[in-house]
Amino acid sequence: MSLRVFAPPGSSPHPGQALTLDDAESRYLRKVRRARDGATIELLDGDGGLWSATVTTGDGRRTTVEVGAPIAVLAPPRRLTLLLGLPDPAATIQALAHATEIGAERIILVRCARSQGRPPSQDRIDRVLRASLRQCGRPSPPTILGPMGLAEALELSGDAAGYLCSTALRGETEREAEASTAAASLLVGPEGGLTPEEVDAALGRGLSPLSLGPWILRTETAALVGLSRLLFSAAPSA
Amino acid sequence: MSLRVFAPPGSSPHPGQALTLDDAESRYLRKVRRARDGATIELLDGDGGLWSATVTTGDGRRTTVEVGAPIAVLAPPRRLTLLLGLPDPAATIQALAHATEIGAERIILVRCARSQGRPPSQDRIDRVLRASLRQCGRPSPPTILGPMGLAEALELSGDAAGYLCSTALRGETEREAEASTAAASLLVGPEGGLTPEEVDAALGRGLSPLSLGPWILRTETAALVGLSRLLFSAAPSA
Repeated sequence: MSLRVFAPPGSSPHPGQALTLDDAESRYLRKVRRARDGATIELLDGDGGLWSATVTTGDGRRTTVEVGAPIAVLAPPRRLTLLLGLPDPAATIQALAHATEIGAERIILVRCARSQGRPPSQDRIDRVLRASLRQCGRPSPPTILGPMGLAEALELSGDAAGYLCSTALRGETEREAEASTAAASLLVGPEGGLTPEEVDAALGRGLSPLSLGPWILRTETAALVGLSRLLFSAAPSA
Repeated sequence: MSLRVFAPPGSSPHPGQALTLDDAESRYLRKVRRARDGATIELLDGDGGLWSATVTTGDGRRTTVEVGAPIAVLAPPRRLTLLLGLPDPAATIQALAHATEIGAERIILVRCARSQGRPPSQDRIDRVLRASLRQCGRPSPPTILGPMGLAEALELSGDAAGYLCSTALRGETEREAEASTAAASLLVGPEGGLTPEEVDAALGRGLSPLSLGPWILRTETAALVGLSRLLFSAAPSA
């Protein structure tokens, strides 16, 4: 039931400091979440830090909080990159929210052969990332790259253990997702899936098939299930 | 890129049979997915079977298909029951779609202390289940039970290895989710989470904490990530 808001950019919170929140955060705190004076909240400093704070004065346009102690910030057990074959904008937004909450470090938007439509606007992406951080308490957003072509995206994902989800690869032997690499990447296709040429290109770059069960998942579902597999099967390396 | 429609209820498809689809399926096939005569599709018989089929004649109101060979139907590696602490209707619909696609066998809607609002209507639930089955190729829907109280839901979930997700249990030792039981159940709370009393009741029934990573997931995200953990970490028993 924690309530979280963002500190003003560049405010570098420290204990005892009185901070006045900006318009959007004041409105969220007072009008959406109806927080009262004296309420204990959490403050995301936008720079990787999370702080305890107390609402002191103000209203839905300018609210002041007093910064308390820093809160220990945990990290997911593995650094994950999602290569997201661009689905329609609503599915992209859903996938970004999911991947942010579960802890993807980077999300690369990939223009695949079967991608249709445009990516969501930067403004919409920023809003969904902020909402997800507030929701889940993650103190800094994932890095969003692209849209770019598949070859470039595979190049960028670099040396991380790579996996791809494609129904074309059903029955192929899986490499153990449990490999204890500190980083891993996951490629999922758009609606309609990856083309045979895209599957070949990914396999050619060393990516391995990852099964998501017997049925065909929507892009945004596949992204979350695949990231879960990679996140929770991993023993983090030193 | 497979395209799936439902056979008329009670039609018991067999190879070579000409089947006329009902209005809704004809419309979906012809107007939404723009399938032409001669297109190869898949036919869900609503009774656990999946068939190859070919579009032969008709239009967006009455389309006839010829039934081909049965398609082998796979099963998920573990029988899963989701105990879903009722969130708002939109999140419930999202969780039902996710859980259907990943292969939950049963979904029990649970009225928790922090549940707000009403469950979606039966009609809306039916529609989302049908859309999910068409999408993912799963031939029969999960059983939906409830809404009911937590005690009754825990009773119903029976002897399956039980897990619960709650941020109140952070740092508690996890039982190995890898336990090779053929069945498992998962309890997730509504927005705002499970109350301490609900957590105690679940622990008292033998449920074990399951971690979903460092941050606080939305109800519908938690349900999917938790089901993924239980599904893919399991070695199915005989």
